[in-house]
Amino acid sequence: MSFSPLIRRLIDGLRGLPGVGPKTAQRMALHLLERDRDVARHLADALHAAMDGVGYCSRCRTLSEHDVCAICSDPRRDSSLLCILQSPADVWAVEQAGGFHGRYFVLKGQLSPIDGLGPEEIGIPALLEAVERSAIEESAVAEVILATNPTVEGEATAHYIANLLKPRGIKVSRIAHGVPLGGELEYIDGGTLAHALAGRTPIL
Amino acid sequence: MSFSPLIRRLIDGLRGLPGVGPKTAQRMALHLLERDRDVARHLADALHAAMDGVGYCSRCRTLSEHDVCAICSDPRRDSSLLCILQSPADVWAVEQAGGFHGRYFVLKGQLSPIDGLGPEEIGIPALLEAVERSAIEESAVAEVILATNPTVEGEATAHYIANLLKPRGIKVSRIAHGVPLGGELEYIDGGTLAHALAGRTPIL
Ligand SMILES: [Zn+2]
Ligand SMILES: [Zn+2]
Repeated sequence: MSFSPLIRRLIDGLRGLPGVGPKTAQRMALHLLERDRDVARHLADALHAAMDGVGYCSRCRTLSEHDVCAICSDPRRDSSLLCILQSPADVWAVEQAGGFHGRYFVLKGQLSPIDGLGPEEIGIPALLEAVERSAIEESAVAEVILATNPTVEGEATAHYIANLLKPRGIKVSRIAHGVPLGGELEYIDGGTLAHALAGRTPIL
Repeated sequence: MSFSPLIRRLIDGLRGLPGVGPKTAQRMALHLLERDRDVARHLADALHAAMDGVGYCSRCRTLSEHDVCAICSDPRRDSSLLCILQSPADVWAVEQAGGFHGRYFVLKGQLSPIDGLGPEEIGIPALLEAVERSAIEESAVAEVILATNPTVEGEATAHYIANLLKPRGIKVSRIAHGVPLGGELEYIDGGTLAHALAGRTPIL
């Protein structure tokens, strides 16, 4: 059938959301039009505000609407302990799990030569800069926890970083197993994740 | 954890969509911020345009951005055959099934005395007006297909309307079974729905 242009555009717009197929988009459009027009307007304003206002923290590279994010600017966080992750979603997951009081550095994904993702592309030079700057501006990073995903690429990324940091006298540990192999950090429950962080093992 | 205000507002906005819980909303927000900012801006504009521009067809009461919708203003549609449904979603479902070339009238739900929904509330007077107007302006309605949901309330609504229209000499039929009992029209596959319309039975 041919929807009227504004309804067609709304359904197409909703299909841009991850996991939303044509039937779900129709159902969402109908729900908003029939029951929740104010909810739809609030969502529209929130989308514009976030897309225009949210960038990346200049220190840890997580999503942030300030130049330095709330975690990096919190003096109670232990800047000698740095957790390295591969996505802002993983920062959210670790924060929601609770129990970690250090700081973060977010890579842009993981090493994957097949996809053209080398150390530059995923932000390893920026990580080294952040480690060096912390030695000057705050307390030096004494320990790094590598919390990349427990996949082949995630392991390779962790080992690559470990080999760069250990010669600098930094203690390097890998997030403990407990995180299921082949899984994606972002989808793991808070308890498992908190346990895995607490039970981290040094990379020798 | 505490998200920054703009990200919090975005996640809350996405949770306003039907079927979207907190985890899904986080995943959608992250996806839009990290990969698809233009998609998010298009969605925002589509939401505003649809909420401001889409109203109801003055004839059939389905969602429409024009006073008279594309179906009601299409001279190739048979105005002597009227299909009565209980939601704009059902119009979409029947149109997508294909094979129906009459016109529609959309009730505001179904009779449900417990919820305070009587004939007025669901738009029966407007339906009678539409039937009477068609006799003057176009070809008179000769047959009505009652395609309310095959639930207790949907059956009661169909019988209520049948009793109003039959004394006016209008042939009244009920959508054929084939639609599973207790099901919701909107979720039924197009083939079943087309079959059910073709195999409609007169209400005696
Ligand atoms: Zn930061
Ligand atoms: Zn219409």
